[in-house]
Amino acid sequence: MTSSIIALTTDFGLRDYYVAAVKGVILGIAPNATIVDVTHEIEPHNVQQAAFVLLQVWPSYPAGTIHIAVVDPGVGSERRILLGRYAGQWVIAPDNGLVTFLHRELPVEVMHVVENRKFFAPALSSTFHARDIMAPVAAHLFQGTLPHEFGRTTDRIEMLSVNSQATITQNRVEGVVLYVDHFGTLVSNIRRDQIDRVAGSAGAQVSVNGQSIGTIHSTYSDVEPGEPVALWGSCDRLEVAVHRGRAVDRFGHDAPVALEW
Amino acid sequence: MTSSIIALTTDFGLRDYYVAAVKGVILGIAPNATIVDVTHEIEPHNVQQAAFVLLQVWPSYPAGTIHIAVVDPGVGSERRILLGRYAGQWVIAPDNGLVTFLHRELPVEVMHVVENRKFFAPALSSTFHARDIMAPVAAHLFQGTLPHEFGRTTDRIEMLSVNSQATITQNRVEGVVLYVDHFGTLVSNIRRDQIDRVAGSAGAQVSVNGQSIGTIHSTYSDVEPGEPVALWGSCDRLEVAVHRGRAVDRFGHDAPVALEW
Amino acid sequence: MTSSIIALTTDFGLRDYYVAAVKGVILGIAPNATIVDVTHEIEPHNVQQAAFVLLQVWPSYPAGTIHIAVVDPGVGSERRILLGRYAGQWVIAPDNGLVTFLHRELPVEVMHVVENRKFFAPALSSTFHARDIMAPVAAHLFQGTLPHEFGRTTDRIEMLSVNSQATITQNRVEGVVLYVDHFGTLVSNIRRDQIDRVAGSAGAQVSVNGQSIGTIHSTYSDVEPGEPVALWGSCDRLEVAVHRGRAVDRFGHDAPVALEW
Repeated sequence: MTSSIIALTTDFGLRDYYVAAVKGVILGIAPNATIVDVTHEIEPHNVQQAAFVLLQVWPSYPAGTIHIAVVDPGVGSERRILLGRYAGQWVIAPDNGLVTFLHRELPVEVMHVVENRKFFAPALSSTFHARDIMAPVAAHLFQGTLPHEFGRTTDRIEMLSVNSQATITQNRVEGVVLYVDHFGTLVSNIRRDQIDRVAGSAGAQVSVNGQSIGTIHSTYSDVEPGEPVALWGSCDRLEVAVHRGRAVDRFGHDAPVALEW
Repeated sequence: MTSSIIALTTDFGLRDYYVAAVKGVILGIAPNATIVDVTHEIEPHNVQQAAFVLLQVWPSYPAGTIHIAVVDPGVGSERRILLGRYAGQWVIAPDNGLVTFLHRELPVEVMHVVENRKFFAPALSSTFHARDIMAPVAAHLFQGTLPHEFGRTTDRIEMLSVNSQATITQNRVEGVVLYVDHFGTLVSNIRRDQIDRVAGSAGAQVSVNGQSIGTIHSTYSDVEPGEPVALWGSCDRLEVAVHRGRAVDRFGHDAPVALEW
Repeated sequence: MTSSIIALTTDFGLRDYYVAAVKGVILGIAPNATIVDVTHEIEPHNVQQAAFVLLQVWPSYPAGTIHIAVVDPGVGSERRILLGRYAGQWVIAPDNGLVTFLHRELPVEVMHVVENRKFFAPALSSTFHARDIMAPVAAHLFQGTLPHEFGRTTDRIEMLSVNSQATITQNRVEGVVLYVDHFGTLVSNIRRDQIDRVAGSAGAQVSVNGQSIGTIHSTYSDVEPGEPVALWGSCDRLEVAVHRGRAVDRFGHDAPVALEW
């Protein structure tokens, strides 16, 4: 099956005309595209947050989906724009680390630099490449333009330095928070398969900021309202929540998370 | 006419990847569905607010529309998931009171428990049933799967204890606020048809928190900017607004609203 | 090419059921419409902000697009509803200044008053004309109803008094901020073509609140993080930003912006 989806992940917010301009350009060229807003509420300039969101949505989308990802404080500078394919889905994004997690966890199948001005808006602004470059490129790709027509291939891309992997010692894993969601839940870089390889997580004790919060549960309602609870979240990473509350208000954004057995 | 709409009402917010994951799963199975966001800004865990929004959007949607409603603090526990049909439209929701107002005001035509794992995601998370159960079930229903294939029927469902109906005495109605909208307008449980049956509302005096605000007007601009105004809102319930201002800032969320004649 | 887009610009916010009701009504009548949310985050009752957003999105949309614009504190009063066409695209809006910038900058091709109740909802509320009038009118226009069927033409419409044009003296332009975006960037009424006619902007000095911030740059990253930067924005108006920061927090909403050469 071929997807007819063009999915947008940006820090544009929803109150300005920016997202709508991108959509208008896409639909002007590719009127049959189904545009999906992944989110436009990435914290302004927070490349890591967007990179994490991309990784999390990938498994839910059909092959052929085209993602546009824009967190782009360097817009108008010499930073490049990439067109890549990971595990059957496309991503168009500035080359500033946005594909870091995709690149570490999924096979890269195609990677081009977007440079053929034939596909750009005729009057190119220096501050809105999402509208003037990424939207028309996505729409032309959707309409059947081949990836090599947009520019030469590359194998050197920018990566974030953040540690995707927790540190494992003999009876302990030490991790960091990669993402805080809008329920205030902390999503760590401790992955279930890492633990299962060395120890299994049954009986292991979780601590946040050095404070023990017990073993890993399977649902929020295993604890009383207001109590913290650790569980394997929907992306198979260790999450710390507060039942009907907000873990981030209790533990902060930068709490070290550890697991000991 | 058959609707091609799948409509989403959740407390997921718009900044995470949760809504997008749900949409990706739906479109992977039902690529021709038109997905409409009713809202994702339900206050976290506020089941009553979502239940009220469902009732309000119902009359605007065509028969056959499939609603997914998710405010689900009990996700992963033993709470059931329902698939019901009210007045020609479908709802898929956890069994925690989300259908309270629909159930009280509209005829229930079909009510099943969702339990056939054949329609669930193969790897079922314990915290994200919207993605792993409700989205694929909605998409398969859209594609033509019959309701009984999802699970057995039920006639016992959870209901909220909130009072949908105002209390009427001889020359007075006492109501409560059911909903506060983003303009700060208070929507009460006093319904026009109730009043019309006993007295008619012409000349009746409205009070909020025991303070009189005059008779019922027909538009906001019948009063000066900054002044409170009572009127029959777009859902035929008595509303209290402040012209170009916010009634909730003046009267609070829990103001008793009364009508006397 | 004919557009299949109906685009919505409102101050309804995303947490209530208002936007969803409008969409349901449209899709009930015009199931093949592609609905695009321009924004629903216009500041409540801020007609100028919506008028500016309309002007900015216009160039990105294909001919035939139908825009519904609703910032309507006078709903239910005697204010009229307009159906106009500017540069090939349609707008349906209350007659309260919402089309001010479109009307000043683009050719008006058609302008009707919406008054034929045949196209309204049968039970007309006094507070929700977006659902009961504008949505069905847009949907019937989409389905092929001719503009004159909705009501007679008019050439007298309400306009805002805001100054769209900056004031030019011999070696100086004085402007005001028309719009503040969600990055905190100030968008002024100083237009590139105005300056190019009299002087050209190379070497000209920009000041905000009387404080000099240097010449006009081409990208945000021409200055250090935290420093203010002036540039021609994506709508060819002079913008003042702070690199990786918020200009509005530094200079306020009402800062006079000047250019001197």
